[in-house]
Amino acid sequence: AINGERLWSTLMEMAQIGGTAKGGCNRQALTDEDKIGRELFIGWCKDIGCTLRVDQMGNMFLRMAGQDNSLAPVITGSHLDTQPTGGKFDGVYGVLAGLEVLRTLHDAGITPLRPIEVAVWTNEEGARFSPAMVGSGVWCGEFDLEYGLSRTDKQGVSIKEALEKIGFLGDEPCKPFPVKAAFELHIEQGPILESLEKPIGVVKGVQGMRWYDLIIDGQPVHAGPTPMEQRRDPFMAQSAIVTELYALAAEYSPLARATFGDIKAEPGSRNTVPARITLAVDLRHPDQTILDEMDAKFREIAKNACEKFNLDFEIKDEWNSPAVEFDKTCVDAMRESVQEKGYAFEEMFSGAGHDSVYTSRVIPTSMIFIPCEKGISHNEAENATPEDIEAGCNVLLGAMLKVANS
Amino acid sequence: AINGERLWSTLMEMAQIGGTAKGGCNRQALTDEDKIGRELFIGWCKDIGCTLRVDQMGNMFLRMAGQDNSLAPVITGSHLDTQPTGGKFDGVYGVLAGLEVLRTLHDAGITPLRPIEVAVWTNEEGARFSPAMVGSGVWCGEFDLEYGLSRTDKQGVSIKEALEKIGFLGDEPCKPFPVKAAFELHIEQGPILESLEKPIGVVKGVQGMRWYDLIIDGQPVHAGPTPMEQRRDPFMAQSAIVTELYALAAEYSPLARATFGDIKAEPGSRNTVPARITLAVDLRHPDQTILDEMDAKFREIAKNACEKFNLDFEIKDEWNSPAVEFDKTCVDAMRESVQEKGYAFEEMFSGAGHDSVYTSRVIPTSMIFIPCEKGISHNEAENATPEDIEAGCNVLLGAMLKVANS
Ligand SMILES: NC(=O)NCCC(=O)O
Ligand SMILES: NC(=O)NCCC(=O)O
Repeated sequence: AINGERLWSTLMEMAQIGGTAKGGCNRQALTDEDKIGRELFIGWCKDIGCTLRVDQMGNMFLRMAGQDNSLAPVITGSHLDTQPTGGKFDGVYGVLAGLEVLRTLHDAGITPLRPIEVAVWTNEEGARFSPAMVGSGVWCGEFDLEYGLSRTDKQGVSIKEALEKIGFLGDEPCKPFPVKAAFELHIEQGPILESLEKPIGVVKGVQGMRWYDLIIDGQPVHAGPTPMEQRRDPFMAQSAIVTELYALAAEYSPLARATFGDIKAEPGSRNTVPARITLAVDLRHPDQTILDEMDAKFREIAKNACEKFNLDFEIKDEWNSPAVEFDKTCVDAMRESVQEKGYAFEEMFSGAGHDSVYTSRVIPTSMIFIPCEKGISHNEAENATPEDIEAGCNVLLGAMLKVANS
Repeated sequence: AINGERLWSTLMEMAQIGGTAKGGCNRQALTDEDKIGRELFIGWCKDIGCTLRVDQMGNMFLRMAGQDNSLAPVITGSHLDTQPTGGKFDGVYGVLAGLEVLRTLHDAGITPLRPIEVAVWTNEEGARFSPAMVGSGVWCGEFDLEYGLSRTDKQGVSIKEALEKIGFLGDEPCKPFPVKAAFELHIEQGPILESLEKPIGVVKGVQGMRWYDLIIDGQPVHAGPTPMEQRRDPFMAQSAIVTELYALAAEYSPLARATFGDIKAEPGSRNTVPARITLAVDLRHPDQTILDEMDAKFREIAKNACEKFNLDFEIKDEWNSPAVEFDKTCVDAMRESVQEKGYAFEEMFSGAGHDSVYTSRVIPTSMIFIPCEKGISHNEAENATPEDIEAGCNVLLGAMLKVANS
């Protein structure tokens, strides 16, 4: 069994890197905080004899040797980057639980047949650089390396520049290598497990999600003398479209999601009708057919509203991550491990994207969830209990050890 | 009569300071461009023997001596600052028409009884610093000097800091001095004169206007796993409130105006429901009673929407400029001057705020308008014809000369 107290204090130590006044974490991808967090983690791994590889996207692999190092490793991991007002568990739990598995084996003097690796994927959140999961996305071949390295933040800094600045632009090729099985442990980021009072979710897949930039162009005119009927005002379409997209999500209730995380008005002057509004749109549904329907309706809604108000518009596709089913053998391994430990569990789908979405395309993958308080995530108040944190890691240890010895 | 060609070429020369690729102007208040524009204008005035005073808000007064300099001057003027994507005429026309009046008198060797001054008011637009017309507002006593100097731009730079940086923090007290009459010449910034095919508007007053920051606070949560019903999403209220405010403007059609010039979502991450939305709201109506009604209904609409979606909100009053009636004697002087020159004219109210709103509180004030193309202003495409530019300035010359000799 793993050491729950050690895992908890490791989490709390990492949470200080980018720690916020409200008890959350702001350790966005490839910032100075991310650099410090990565170095802290690497130090912990090296202390127990692990070796490091960094690839061309800054993805890191910390490897503990097995008895037969010619065999494909078992891997686990997640991400160390956070939202701008993120919490202490999203991503980092999966990484530090992987470390705790390695520490447990190391302390017990156990060397499994296969090597074990803990992976840290670059820019999972998609908060600083869009799209999300871009490190694992390039690794699995969903995106070109060039596309990945050229993503920019709001200040125009590219991933390549940011990686160089913090010294994590590696030279390992960013592409799949043989892996026996990949497991990712994560907080649920939603309310299901807590409401069912079950500590473990066996995750069978991930819902489909699409990101767009909706750009609406009007005519800047003076707020005072210009009659309302003569305006071409992007806010007229923005307010109508947002209202209709909430109605669309309600139509496909309870599983559909519509979220607007960011918006910009240009030139952004109080007494001028904006020339342009840019709205970030996030649509999701676990059923790919329905998500495709929502996508088509969104385009129709935007078109109609912009026609009605005599505005020009463009929908920029930022990200398209279709619904995913995880590998049956990996899901079975997780279910068996939970049952052996005797925890109550629920089989479920993930509402959030995870690096496992992309690794599952090229290597056998599955995930486990633990509850998070009130289902709240992407929030500084994000929380999880030490008991659930420990339970999840024990399930991970059980599954990894079994596969690593097979 | 004034020299129309000289006035036009002076306007075009000034338009190069902050000139944009699309033929507009970005010479925002107290930027380096504003400094260069001010210095250019001061040079022109000094060339014909004017003297300069700069007050504690950076307002500038360029004075041409009269026969009896103990008499109160006649003043004219407007502002040199522009919107971020502004045009070549808004404000600057009133300043350079004042210069053209002085140049005409100078060339003709005419010294009127009273001194004449051209005023350049600081930060009329309200684009860089809110509220609008803050230079004339402090001068007339609507705002404290301390309030005026402490207004900040989006980067947190205060008016005082910006004035110091460009060297225009003067030491003249920013307060009214005796003035015989104040006239302001401006483009209409709306479509009325053009549609009536009349070159001159005799402006009898200015509509009431209110600026607010509507701040809506929700709960940041993850865009994927969080059920729609459990969200406290500020965009749910924002879209509803904007829609209802357009309906409110339609209710008081055709004179009411509702404009949203700027918006911000925090933390501004695509896959996180915003914690906070800040929306700039601008409501206007020429009838103060109706504007008060609109104000009350806006508060009700915001309250109901935020209650419905379980959100917190605050309405920050940014600016409140009640409807204004100009001085009858000044309006009459303008009407007589137009009639003498034989131009067709319309008596009208202004939809935009002008420095004359504030000067009219403490000195006899009125305005004249000329048409602008398609009524478009606060836009790089803002345009006016050389003929109308010349006509307006001739009307100004006539009225000023008459009053300056009385
Ligand atoms: N787990 C997580 O926050 N992933 C980011 C991608 C998403 O938006 O679902
Ligand atoms: N003329 C002008 O653009 N004034 C700014 C104040 C307002 O918004 O009306």
